[in-house]
Amino acid sequence: MPAPFESLSEFRDLLQQLPVPDASAIAAARARDAVLTKPPGALGRLEDVAIWMAGWQGTACPVVDRPLILIFAGNHGVTAQGVSAFPAAVTAQMVGNFQQGGAAINQLAKAFGARLEVIALDLDRPTADFTEQPAMTEGEVVAALSAGWNAVVAGSDLLVTGEMGIGNTTAAAALAAALYGGGAGWVGRGTGVDDAGLAVKGRVVEAGLARNAQVLADPLQALRCLGGREIAAMAGAIARARVDRVPVVLDGFICCAAAAVLARLNPAALDHAVAGHVSAEAAHGRLLAHLGKVPLLDLGMRLGEGSGAALAIAVVKGAVACHSGMATFAEAGVSDG
Amino acid sequence: MPAPFESLSEFRDLLQQLPVPDASAIAAARARDAVLTKPPGALGRLEDVAIWMAGWQGTACPVVDRPLILIFAGNHGVTAQGVSAFPAAVTAQMVGNFQQGGAAINQLAKAFGARLEVIALDLDRPTADFTEQPAMTEGEVVAALSAGWNAVVAGSDLLVTGEMGIGNTTAAAALAAALYGGGAGWVGRGTGVDDAGLAVKGRVVEAGLARNAQVLADPLQALRCLGGREIAAMAGAIARARVDRVPVVLDGFICCAAAAVLARLNPAALDHAVAGHVSAEAAHGRLLAHLGKVPLLDLGMRLGEGSGAALAIAVVKGAVACHSGMATFAEAGVSDG
Repeated sequence: MPAPFESLSEFRDLLQQLPVPDASAIAAARARDAVLTKPPGALGRLEDVAIWMAGWQGTACPVVDRPLILIFAGNHGVTAQGVSAFPAAVTAQMVGNFQQGGAAINQLAKAFGARLEVIALDLDRPTADFTEQPAMTEGEVVAALSAGWNAVVAGSDLLVTGEMGIGNTTAAAALAAALYGGGAGWVGRGTGVDDAGLAVKGRVVEAGLARNAQVLADPLQALRCLGGREIAAMAGAIARARVDRVPVVLDGFICCAAAAVLARLNPAALDHAVAGHVSAEAAHGRLLAHLGKVPLLDLGMRLGEGSGAALAIAVVKGAVACHSGMATFAEAGVSDG
Repeated sequence: MPAPFESLSEFRDLLQQLPVPDASAIAAARARDAVLTKPPGALGRLEDVAIWMAGWQGTACPVVDRPLILIFAGNHGVTAQGVSAFPAAVTAQMVGNFQQGGAAINQLAKAFGARLEVIALDLDRPTADFTEQPAMTEGEVVAALSAGWNAVVAGSDLLVTGEMGIGNTTAAAALAAALYGGGAGWVGRGTGVDDAGLAVKGRVVEAGLARNAQVLADPLQALRCLGGREIAAMAGAIARARVDRVPVVLDGFICCAAAAVLARLNPAALDHAVAGHVSAEAAHGRLLAHLGKVPLLDLGMRLGEGSGAALAIAVVKGAVACHSGMATFAEAGVSDG
């Protein structure tokens, strides 16, 4: 079945008609939480996560039995400007590594029982250098949004979207700047550029913002002109998850830049998403603050690939395992204080 | 085989002869980390955890295949002073709940593949009220240390020690005060006492410190006079894990108070332990700072039962899965920048 949009305009309209969480499931989950064999509130954030999961899964007892990790890969014309510590060829090499099972995300997916799908998006056809022209045509960005939309496997009960794309912290920084202002203040060291590389990234972001300034007030045009295919695909997948009521764990800076496009189009568009972690990429914490999200983990990770969010699957698993599996005071014959 | 100590003096001596991590395994793990298919340092704290695990397991490729969670339960005479929001009978009721599989820790153990053992320590014979006399005799505290020592299952590759004991945040606060000074400043709301209950806890801690003041300069006497059986048992289990080179994930305030006894006897005694989380119990963060430990998780949990540390097993699992399972740049044919 094709994605239910064929243009940015149709995608925009779709984001104005999003489902809301199931209020009766939330109420039932809250009632259950109150009688589980623990002091009230003693599981802290795990209780909030379980009740939030209940709302999106539409049941008092949510589960994480079929988590899905989608990794989208794309190449960026802007790498010609020298914005990364790694050559662009590494994107395709790492896709091979994902397919062979050798990357960090493969190990995390296996450790936490997640299905992993890798979607390489036209790697031999990088986006245009956004300092020279818009990164994508409307057709290209709609195709990437659709690729993300269509990649969400039916029956998944939790979604992580991750990415691989040499140069994409630069694209994400430019996108964040277009969405929230702040110019080059969004750049960071990515895979590990030095001070000179950081300065280059800043100049490239400013150049991209200047080159595309006329259309950047529209979040979807910002995505088209500054983003990459993998960034658009993550936005498409996160939107699809919302329509299907599948909760999402957001990953790092690039994933959150993709998600921010949706949030700028509809402030409620990420209600089905939790922040898996805050990364070491300098501006990620600030981006999370714009999204109103408090991360589950803070472990100094900055790998991408969905790795921080994949680790956070374990936290969500633990939360729903406690909530849905624990005995009540009455069932266990325990005095409730 | 009995524990290799029959007195506090012998336990004290044992803590002066602890094994150190395997330096060659650490070097090999660092070398491996440097060539895995990721930018240097991009897995953040996961890399530190994996290398630390390598040192204790004595291999460049550590594993978490047989994690063990030990829950010790004990009753406290000091509950007669009204220090808890729950009646003392709840300790035994919750042990029943653990045995039936209905508690939070059962769900977390199952979710992360950990073996769970519950050891109830003389629940029908609470420790003495420490505001009136020492909580335990030397024979009692040595028996509890031994129970912990003997509970560590051979072949375990990661240990979590947890506890259940109505009144034990009061005992732990008194113990922390004896070890580090600060008097009633260590009390918190535990399972959820109100302001009046908090004031009672503070007075009870001060009374216990005053009553036993003559011997509290010795950490093991502080454990005997103010601790509980489950607290001593956790100390015994953590010490045993060290001798067996089994890495440990510390849980919350009470577990860390037990661990602190060891740290006060030998500043290196907890080198084989990582802090699983920082709990919502007010003084836990301060106690972790005294121990020099940075928590892996900060999720507002305050349940005990080893629950925070059990969740952190997932982080350690993720860390060693990445470290030991990832391909190197050479193996994957990926350019290393």
